[in-house]
Amino acid sequence: MLTIRFRTEDYEGYGLLDGDNVYEAQSFDSTERGRTHARAGVRLLAPVTPSKIVCVGRNYVDHAKELGNPVPAEPLIFLKPPSSIIGPGDNIVCPPISNTVSYEGELGVVIGRRARHVRAEEAAAYIFGYTCVNDVTARDLQKKDGQWTRGKGFDTFCPVGPAIVPRSSVEFSSLRVRTVLNGEVKQDGSVLDMIFSVNAIIAFVTEFMTLEAGDLIATGTPSGVGPMEPGSTVRVEIDGVGVLENQLVRG
Amino acid sequence: MLTIRFRTEDYEGYGLLDGDNVYEAQSFDSTERGRTHARAGVRLLAPVTPSKIVCVGRNYVDHAKELGNPVPAEPLIFLKPPSSIIGPGDNIVCPPISNTVSYEGELGVVIGRRARHVRAEEAAAYIFGYTCVNDVTARDLQKKDGQWTRGKGFDTFCPVGPAIVPRSSVEFSSLRVRTVLNGEVKQDGSVLDMIFSVNAIIAFVTEFMTLEAGDLIATGTPSGVGPMEPGSTVRVEIDGVGVLENQLVRG
Repeated sequence: MLTIRFRTEDYEGYGLLDGDNVYEAQSFDSTERGRTHARAGVRLLAPVTPSKIVCVGRNYVDHAKELGNPVPAEPLIFLKPPSSIIGPGDNIVCPPISNTVSYEGELGVVIGRRARHVRAEEAAAYIFGYTCVNDVTARDLQKKDGQWTRGKGFDTFCPVGPAIVPRSSVEFSSLRVRTVLNGEVKQDGSVLDMIFSVNAIIAFVTEFMTLEAGDLIATGTPSGVGPMEPGSTVRVEIDGVGVLENQLVRG
Repeated sequence: MLTIRFRTEDYEGYGLLDGDNVYEAQSFDSTERGRTHARAGVRLLAPVTPSKIVCVGRNYVDHAKELGNPVPAEPLIFLKPPSSIIGPGDNIVCPPISNTVSYEGELGVVIGRRARHVRAEEAAAYIFGYTCVNDVTARDLQKKDGQWTRGKGFDTFCPVGPAIVPRSSVEFSSLRVRTVLNGEVKQDGSVLDMIFSVNAIIAFVTEFMTLEAGDLIATGTPSGVGPMEPGSTVRVEIDGVGVLENQLVRG
């Protein structure tokens, strides 16, 4: 059973997805099934409403190298604003002031309970589940500004979804992050190639910043990033986690 | 009448402060007075619960120069996490891994309604009011990381308050941001010396990022920043806006 958020004519909120049925749910971590809807009749939304989107830069060796950056000695942390989140099927809007809007397919980790000063060995217990994230980046503005907030913070620059798969349902070591642009595979990396593991990231982040239940961590992107043109279709696919598809449109 | 948040034995939420009385309020922009409490009997909290804390770096010429940085051609935007917020009287916790925790006194702008693609000429209508912010910064980690998220994002590194003063009650051009460390004035700058005005900042930010009602903008710090030691008392004072005092403790 997967955690989602969805909208119908008279409901917008959390839900549970089980085959062809969708059930309303009180909160992101509720397992109690409310009113039933047919899957085909609801609109999926981003499955998270986090207080923070914590991202890790340069967390795959090959990706750090492809952009000419050093391999970091510690996780390189930055934030995307919650206002950048969109759901599956929503449009990524290319801003007129950028010429190079890039995809970055990533494994998303959803935090299950407040986490502060968590040791890596204990981190798994704070993970609610996994989802797909596209850390969309205006590469030119990212480089120009130095700080990445604008280049990575545009409205629509954080597609998330389609669902949260519970940690216990995922065979972590087999996960591969694939990004497919207009049908062509552009990124395909194993999560085992992360420089800093999910547990290490949680330990590093919670040493300085309390994570709240529902917060989202984007764990970094494998090699193969590149620009997208308006009119493109981009998919982040993680077998066992989901397929997140979005179209690009001109802003 | 000032907007606050406060806590008593049986209440925690928004309120209105009028002289010696505090009234419960439904939301940050409500003017309807609920139950009354004596000011002396309540604990003030940070007056905001923003979805985003949007900060402007190097927005005063003398401050950019004192750290050896160029004067920016565009606002340099970064984010502090909501988890870093503390209220008046709360302790700033110095993390063991930093040797240089610095104050940065700033004028805080609280957004009154959703703002997207707002022109500078129209920006004032989106400002709910003003407050004091201390953009506490682990200077060594800020420099080491490159991205400022960790150096500026520690829990307790964003004191805010004590209240929100409505825009209409503030004579903006007369505002000065003063930071007082252990009784000694360290910063004293006029808001008229900002490189990018509040209206220009709102226009720049909302060009890429939707601001929500209740979001907080920290508008940059004047010259005179410097380190604080555990045991210190730091005050950000803006005449007509308020006095925000916090103690530093060892983490």
